[in-house]
Amino acid sequence: MKPNGEDEEAPAGGPWEECFEAAVQLALRAGQIIRKALSEEKRVSTKTSAADLVTETDHLVEGLIISELQKRFPSHRFIAEEAAAAGAKCVLTPSPTWIVDPIDGTCNFVHRFPTVAVSIGFAVNQECQHQFSSVETKRSLYPCNSTKLEFGVIYHCTEERLYTGRRGRGAFCNGQRLRVSGETDISKALVLTEIGPKRDPATLKLFLSNMERLLHAKAHGVRVIGSSTLALCHLASGAADAYYQFGLHCWDLAAATVIIREAGGIVMDTSGGPLDLMSCRVVAAGTREMATLIAQALQTINYGRDDEK
Amino acid sequence: MKPNGEDEEAPAGGPWEECFEAAVQLALRAGQIIRKALSEEKRVSTKTSAADLVTETDHLVEGLIISELQKRFPSHRFIAEEAAAAGAKCVLTPSPTWIVDPIDGTCNFVHRFPTVAVSIGFAVNQECQHQFSSVETKRSLYPCNSTKLEFGVIYHCTEERLYTGRRGRGAFCNGQRLRVSGETDISKALVLTEIGPKRDPATLKLFLSNMERLLHAKAHGVRVIGSSTLALCHLASGAADAYYQFGLHCWDLAAATVIIREAGGIVMDTSGGPLDLMSCRVVAAGTREMATLIAQALQTINYGRDDEK
Repeated sequence: MKPNGEDEEAPAGGPWEECFEAAVQLALRAGQIIRKALSEEKRVSTKTSAADLVTETDHLVEGLIISELQKRFPSHRFIAEEAAAAGAKCVLTPSPTWIVDPIDGTCNFVHRFPTVAVSIGFAVNQECQHQFSSVETKRSLYPCNSTKLEFGVIYHCTEERLYTGRRGRGAFCNGQRLRVSGETDISKALVLTEIGPKRDPATLKLFLSNMERLLHAKAHGVRVIGSSTLALCHLASGAADAYYQFGLHCWDLAAATVIIREAGGIVMDTSGGPLDLMSCRVVAAGTREMATLIAQALQTINYGRDDEK
Repeated sequence: MKPNGEDEEAPAGGPWEECFEAAVQLALRAGQIIRKALSEEKRVSTKTSAADLVTETDHLVEGLIISELQKRFPSHRFIAEEAAAAGAKCVLTPSPTWIVDPIDGTCNFVHRFPTVAVSIGFAVNQECQHQFSSVETKRSLYPCNSTKLEFGVIYHCTEERLYTGRRGRGAFCNGQRLRVSGETDISKALVLTEIGPKRDPATLKLFLSNMERLLHAKAHGVRVIGSSTLALCHLASGAADAYYQFGLHCWDLAAATVIIREAGGIVMDTSGGPLDLMSCRVVAAGTREMATLIAQALQTINYGRDDEK
């Protein structure tokens, strides 16, 4: 995070205070479970591809987070990585919706590579704030254009760094204010990306070609750390200047988007248009100029949409 | 590091005990300076290329380490990154030689990307152990085939993790024993690499083509963290299964090589032959099988030799 950042806390209160506090507590509890699991031998229960490992701890942590939130907020809805893998739909409705990645950096986790996070985002339809009753039956009638990301909580489990962002109230890491870098020149930029889950030759060619374009544009460096959410937190803290990825999901993006925006940064679609949380692609940067330059340099890799799977 | 690792310390004593203790103390002091610098605004004093930034702190830290060691061990010789950049020769002589990288991950450091290390390696000619007198004049007569890496100390400045390895006495991180992964199958491997300083189109093509070959071989993941020495420490701890790079230097390799070997791992040339510390290239892995498979998959990128620059 930026030095000399004021050691200020976001002011308390607001309609979603209780939800935010629950998210923080659950992220810390989940982090404890993950740290413990990292100190034990791991058995991988199933895998859909070499790069997409699903572990018992993933299931355990997601179960904990969702069951606790369901108990406390019974009218809320959930979008979560493991549930989606089991066939649950990723749809934002007018109900307040939690968007959860129990372990971001699953491949890291399996190898005990210590870059692993819990991510909890929270989206609210602005027309139904304060309305906690179930609107299940009206789901298909709501276009949800007014759904906004309200807060995000990301916990770096091994380094015990808690990143939070609340709409209109700033972004923080362990209580210290986060601010993005003001860099606008690619040749001075540290750029982060991730490889993405598809590994067929055509997709790999596009991935490597995008990296080549940025290195030809003389980016200082390109980093691949294996956790989208923590890469996005580095961006929020000003330790990197840009991030892009194809093949990430709404649960990788939801919490981080609030944190980056509250740190003064830009999160947009790779087309250069507004972010679409369900589009499986993103460019983020400290400045709009940098985000636009990166978006212009990229070739699209088609991963479909989270809400059409 | 591997869980359930015994919390054992390497036994004390041995001919280079005083040197080892000095290295540990200097790495910790250097780490303190680097952490402080990371909390201040940075001015980059000069740069030879976008990817090769040289900062004031680099000079300051190298100056501290070398002046302290020279005071205590006046007959010893030094190979260090900043001195080499200023034209000093990288030659192993029969004198005990310190091989120092004051800040590994300079580009990370400049961006405040928190993956930055101090690396101090120590090589000794086995025929002249205990001989502290200067042999300056005989330098060119000694083939130094019997020069051995005696110990390595690497300090992860922001996470305050101290990695140490001493020949015949094991490798440790903050007192916990390190052991490499036993993986022999690329399709189950987390592989680390770095981009290297040359960014001309032909070199970038080779770099990306090597990454493509490993992804085609279905490596679980490839990571690029921006610090060769810390990547090699992850390998020593079993958190990654292999590492390769073209374009690194003897000061990136010296300390890490002892740590990996003492953690049970293999460090070799990309040709599959024995490691040549001055060859600017390396493959390291938890097992010989893995190292050989990686070496076979790679195309060579020619960076010349450290001792011919």
